[in-house]
Amino acid sequence: MSTVKPAAELETDPRVKAVFDDIRTTRKSDFINNMWLYLAFDPALLESTWREVKAVMATPSALDPLVKEMLYIAVSVTNGCSYCVHSHTAAAKAKGMSPEQHAELLSIISLASKTNQLATGLQVPVDPVFDADCG
Amino acid sequence: MSTVKPAAELETDPRVKAVFDDIRTTRKSDFINNMWLYLAFDPALLESTWREVKAVMATPSALDPLVKEMLYIAVSVTNGCSYCVHSHTAAAKAKGMSPEQHAELLSIISLASKTNQLATGLQVPVDPVFDADCG
Amino acid sequence: MSTVKPAAELETDPRVKAVFDDIRTTRKSDFINNMWLYLAFDPALLESTWREVKAVMATPSALDPLVKEMLYIAVSVTNGCSYCVHSHTAAAKAKGMSPEQHAELLSIISLASKTNQLATGLQVPVDPVFDADCG
Amino acid sequence: MSTVKPAAELETDPRVKAVFDDIRTTRKSDFINNMWLYLAFDPALLESTWREVKAVMATPSALDPLVKEMLYIAVSVTNGCSYCVHSHTAAAKAKGMSPEQHAELLSIISLASKTNQLATGLQVPVDPVFDADCG
Amino acid sequence: MSTVKPAAELETDPRVKAVFDDIRTTRKSDFINNMWLYLAFDPALLESTWREVKAVMATPSALDPLVKEMLYIAVSVTNGCSYCVHSHTAAAKAKGMSPEQHAELLSIISLASKTNQLATGLQVPVDPVFDADCG
Amino acid sequence: MSTVKPAAELETDPRVKAVFDDIRTTRKSDFINNMWLYLAFDPALLESTWREVKAVMATPSALDPLVKEMLYIAVSVTNGCSYCVHSHTAAAKAKGMSPEQHAELLSIISLASKTNQLATGLQVPVDPVFDADCG
Repeated sequence: MSTVKPAAELETDPRVKAVFDDIRTTRKSDFINNMWLYLAFDPALLESTWREVKAVMATPSALDPLVKEMLYIAVSVTNGCSYCVHSHTAAAKAKGMSPEQHAELLSIISLASKTNQLATGLQVPVDPVFDADCG
Repeated sequence: MSTVKPAAELETDPRVKAVFDDIRTTRKSDFINNMWLYLAFDPALLESTWREVKAVMATPSALDPLVKEMLYIAVSVTNGCSYCVHSHTAAAKAKGMSPEQHAELLSIISLASKTNQLATGLQVPVDPVFDADCG
Repeated sequence: MSTVKPAAELETDPRVKAVFDDIRTTRKSDFINNMWLYLAFDPALLESTWREVKAVMATPSALDPLVKEMLYIAVSVTNGCSYCVHSHTAAAKAKGMSPEQHAELLSIISLASKTNQLATGLQVPVDPVFDADCG
Repeated sequence: MSTVKPAAELETDPRVKAVFDDIRTTRKSDFINNMWLYLAFDPALLESTWREVKAVMATPSALDPLVKEMLYIAVSVTNGCSYCVHSHTAAAKAKGMSPEQHAELLSIISLASKTNQLATGLQVPVDPVFDADCG
Repeated sequence: MSTVKPAAELETDPRVKAVFDDIRTTRKSDFINNMWLYLAFDPALLESTWREVKAVMATPSALDPLVKEMLYIAVSVTNGCSYCVHSHTAAAKAKGMSPEQHAELLSIISLASKTNQLATGLQVPVDPVFDADCG
Repeated sequence: MSTVKPAAELETDPRVKAVFDDIRTTRKSDFINNMWLYLAFDPALLESTWREVKAVMATPSALDPLVKEMLYIAVSVTNGCSYCVHSHTAAAKAKGMSPEQHAELLSIISLASKTNQLATGLQVPVDPVFDADCG
């Protein structure tokens, strides 16, 4: 079930096809996952989204590729995005996340939500020493 | 402003004092941040929370200590927990997070929330290949 | 799957039937969507919910009916309510939302979540000029 | 800081005054908290909100008044609504919530968020036996 | 669909089996729901999660068992955790939640989210009298 | 309080200055709000964020400028982003949002969160007719 119709994997719209080709080249895989097939209902949105995902997630940077995927999972779980939890967990496993690391990731993100609730429930005031504006 | 009264840093309740002492020893610092001072309104809750935070965050494990802090920040930002964003950003900086890594962290967690919204708005169906139950 | 049993579309409970009849009259359609069939497990909750939805969403007001649906979608996507994303996207299309407007709507709500994350991650202080209490 | 200007406690607008008087009578107190002073920027919104809060929270029902406040706190903490956490924690204390109950409340809502994260991170399928549509 | 493979109900790993046996004994039922079958992909995570759930939810305390389940539902609905809404609604019914109480529970948690949105939209300042640090 | 230090309004870094100049030109105002001053801790993040905000929010499109601001508010309130609620409410007022429209906006977003909670609490199944994949 979805709110728009997906494109076909062998897309004929030249703008959509160009993005799909770049996804295949960047990932060294023929597989196009549903996120991109559905975003293709609007070629401009597909283009800008892929451009940003490629720049942030598929370009060498200050953070390790597996760490990036785990951060993506942490946000996606917290936002309750079922699709993104599935796709980025698969991506993290493809980049070498071990079952032990997966379990530890889940321990951290569930503990963080737990202590977030405690801090919010207590309305703990921020320690002045944490303020980057000062000192 | 808070919903309970905090303990004093030089606590006299022996259960609270024992936790504060262990925090100081574990962190090699005399500073006790507000989270623990306010949790001390209930010694049992203070004990169980610190025990879990220490086990997950302050014990050598499959993930790097700085990565753990960044995961904690990712969840805390997504949950909108102001206190936790402050305390864990400070902790990440203390563990060596550079301004470049901080900026990249924010790029990833903000992009993740953006694509979470797109996947949810489109109600993209999960690709069968992502299902760990099969294959 | 649900947590309560739905009513039948041809309901015999007079309070439920009265609401269903008003939904049909208000919407000029025989179709009753699942939200109302399931809410009917408690006639009082069904009545108060429909009364409020009708007053806010189906009564001429200061905002355009399509704009109202788009606002509903924005909240529902952000809350991750799958049912509501589906039902209000269908309603927005029925009120004339074009694919171009749909794409722009998704661009805005995903960008908003992205910059929400940035503002929260940076803990940006509110500019005094934004305070309606003053000036 | 706020996004609208509040009404004065001794309001002269007759619709606003009528609501304030009913709040004072219902609560047996002269105090009007900020929520109502700010909602008064729109008398109709003030009226409908107070009517609903009074009906749900200040009318004898199937649930105990203190339990209702604790449920309100649970939702408000999870939504990260600082104002509501403060006001409903104060209300719960006024209705007799002990420090022990407060600590237990926080234990439950923080544990719930923790296991919510685990279930979402694992994408645990719902057991068919939990479906109220069947059986 | 899930992100890990579940254990079998008749588990042979001794750590997993010990937890499953304790769940059966504690609940006086042979049924093990999916949450635990999937958490078993990591025996340590299964053990620590069950230990905490048992201590908080299945041990006599200052709050009534049914109230605890309703609080769990309130958090789970607000976090949008489909699995947890199903499992804890079933648990609440098993502990005697009537349809009338279920409807009232939903009235409160939906009203709380509504007024959370109003307080956040208005950015209502916290009344000084609500501050537990003072007075 | 913040997690990074802000730039000065009269910035000397040429990349930051170029963005600030473009903000002033685009908005026809000398005022630079804090969001941009703090994002300037990382010039690349400042550039990419402003580029996207300008393209989506400050470029003529299929949606009215005031409608866009109201959608931004709806998301920001739901995410609980205090800064963004303030800045976009101010922006909406500057674009002509009347108090009546402001009140209606708050009615819709608070009602949407209320019915989101009801749909999630009931786990209402999506009506097949809402599925854009079919028909």
